[in-house]
Amino acid sequence: MTFSYVSHLYCPRCEKTYDASKKQQLCSCGSPLLVAYDMERLTENWRPEQLHDREQSLWRYHELLPVNDPKHITSLGEGMTPLVSMDRIGQEMDIAALFMKDEGLVPTGSFKARGAAVGVSKAKELGVEELAMPTNGNAGAAWSLYAARAGITATIVMPVDAPYITRVECQIAGANLFLVNGLISDAGKIVGEEIKKRNIFDASTLKEPYRIEGKKTMGLEIAEQLDWNVPDVILYPTGGGVGLIGIYKALKELQQLGWLTGNKLPRLVAVQAEGCAPIVEAWKDGKKSSEFWPNSKTAAFGINVPKALGDFLVLDAIYQTDGCAVAVDDQTLLEEQKNVARMEGAFVCPEGAAAFAAARKLRKQGWIQSNEQVVVLNTGAGIKYPETVELDIPVLEPGDSLP
Amino acid sequence: MTFSYVSHLYCPRCEKTYDASKKQQLCSCGSPLLVAYDMERLTENWRPEQLHDREQSLWRYHELLPVNDPKHITSLGEGMTPLVSMDRIGQEMDIAALFMKDEGLVPTGSFKARGAAVGVSKAKELGVEELAMPTNGNAGAAWSLYAARAGITATIVMPVDAPYITRVECQIAGANLFLVNGLISDAGKIVGEEIKKRNIFDASTLKEPYRIEGKKTMGLEIAEQLDWNVPDVILYPTGGGVGLIGIYKALKELQQLGWLTGNKLPRLVAVQAEGCAPIVEAWKDGKKSSEFWPNSKTAAFGINVPKALGDFLVLDAIYQTDGCAVAVDDQTLLEEQKNVARMEGAFVCPEGAAAFAAARKLRKQGWIQSNEQVVVLNTGAGIKYPETVELDIPVLEPGDSLP
Repeated sequence: MTFSYVSHLYCPRCEKTYDASKKQQLCSCGSPLLVAYDMERLTENWRPEQLHDREQSLWRYHELLPVNDPKHITSLGEGMTPLVSMDRIGQEMDIAALFMKDEGLVPTGSFKARGAAVGVSKAKELGVEELAMPTNGNAGAAWSLYAARAGITATIVMPVDAPYITRVECQIAGANLFLVNGLISDAGKIVGEEIKKRNIFDASTLKEPYRIEGKKTMGLEIAEQLDWNVPDVILYPTGGGVGLIGIYKALKELQQLGWLTGNKLPRLVAVQAEGCAPIVEAWKDGKKSSEFWPNSKTAAFGINVPKALGDFLVLDAIYQTDGCAVAVDDQTLLEEQKNVARMEGAFVCPEGAAAFAAARKLRKQGWIQSNEQVVVLNTGAGIKYPETVELDIPVLEPGDSLP
Repeated sequence: MTFSYVSHLYCPRCEKTYDASKKQQLCSCGSPLLVAYDMERLTENWRPEQLHDREQSLWRYHELLPVNDPKHITSLGEGMTPLVSMDRIGQEMDIAALFMKDEGLVPTGSFKARGAAVGVSKAKELGVEELAMPTNGNAGAAWSLYAARAGITATIVMPVDAPYITRVECQIAGANLFLVNGLISDAGKIVGEEIKKRNIFDASTLKEPYRIEGKKTMGLEIAEQLDWNVPDVILYPTGGGVGLIGIYKALKELQQLGWLTGNKLPRLVAVQAEGCAPIVEAWKDGKKSSEFWPNSKTAAFGINVPKALGDFLVLDAIYQTDGCAVAVDDQTLLEEQKNVARMEGAFVCPEGAAAFAAARKLRKQGWIQSNEQVVVLNTGAGIKYPETVELDIPVLEPGDSLP
């Protein structure tokens, strides 16, 4: 029995192909590489019914993941997060069927665990012993912990402004952690220099081909959880954009397998913050790639990415699905975070809150119809972001009564 | 079709019974009440195979839960957390089959969500519009968020020393939150007075009968995940002890249903901190209940409970299963928290770390055998406890190289 149908890597820009059994980074043309599978054989041999008895983790889709030998799987039970109905806030927004895919319920409390689980497992299979990466926090935390589980050494560089808890996660995992008094792009330069110097594996976003395969499982799960009827719209908070690229890749692969009902894919929406909206600007102008966004700033730190390496893939996914890109301001997204908690009992991360705010905005504009089925990705747990909520709480002494 | 086989409430101390279709708190004798089901009819009508196609949440066991009408279910997708193999640290401890049931992967990042989901759902079914409770943090956070989802008003009182993030959760959920310059017992007195004054529902630990039903699903899941072969030992960090009482209740109910392979139940272990070990002291003396522990103090704040209302039920569960109670000191548990992260990539909460440390101790003492199957409950996500890890991380400037 074939565990993985991975066949090779290919460049989505220049179409050059690469051997997937060797360590690879970027294409020689500078583009990220994508993973290809033997879809013909897979279509013959794989049926949705086979998923029925499988474990409730993203590894249930192992045929469409890149790890060849199950012994390399480095798992903490990640994946198959719930698709939660959000009826009250949906009603308030006038969206008939609003769902949240809650990525807070994975190890490390962020969807980054998906990319780390698959990326680290494949790195282990390829014999990687040491890796390095820049991060806005959550990816570094996830890669540190999965690397620890796999026995791989991790070097992580993150901005001083990254969520505090992600430092703690890297540190307790035993990673070599450094802060930089700047942005993720500054961290990236420091990592890049170290990688050249010491010839270690570059696990930067999209500079290794496999984390996207982990993130695409969000798309596989949404489709399976809706019984292979895809929703009308999927909203995704977009920094590096790997999740959105991954979801699009997943949907295309499911379409090729013939598993999806109907021919239409969901309209994919890239949600950004007004303080860092390079994809939104590019989409408005109908461009194929984005410009570096100077002096970027937002409370939704995970999407503070001034220029994404995979911007052209994000934009392509939006154009191909008749999607759009939309920006919301910090005050609006922080207000929406409160709404979601008070109406639905879900403490979402600021990035997830931005996606809810975007759904509200697009419904108001009529871009989303009242009768459409809409899935919002909450990319992480609100508990990782204590600083987004201002507190003013009365302190009593023992024996006091409530005021 | 019967959705729930709940029949009535009963007192485990004086055997008096109560109507489960009305709001109930403690028995008139002062004991907590437990939920009874029509086990005869359930045994006839329910088979493990029926679980096969059900949703991956604790509601898959709805027959054995107290909510009669599915429309009252207040769910964020909680339950069916992974049972993760911990081979490396197991090998280090010389335990052949060591597993972690990871309760970090539920909404609010703590197992308290199980009790809140079922407790709030039943409260909604019973027409509760306002509830109040004292908490060491996590339960208050979970009940605040689930109450918000159910449209119930929550009043929460917690010690100033409770984990900071749990304040944030209560606040964003819109609860009436108060801090007290003391312990959970001081918070309890303040809540008790308010409840008398205003006749609102008392959601304090074990003062309402239903949160235990939510927590028992940990036991149902462990059994199902091991294909109805129960493990040899289950270790549980014990504050109020509801989880342990719940797991024991679950196992007894599964035994009654005839679903378990073999006749032996797992030996249940109550893990406490040396700075607050009333159950351990009582168990050492073979007593049926515990004494109030003065000046209690531990870094594992969730198990800082000087006197548990259900202590006699915890002790009974230990005696009935040939289990034990064991205390570990703060330094040891914090050290174990690091071990688990570095060897397994899991950032567990301090309470979960205490349970791992207890497994190590009991193996060293020979109480756990090398060939036994052992399940450790990690009751919450480490990310809720940034203060347990000391940081000293170098800060670079843009353009710097790694040292």
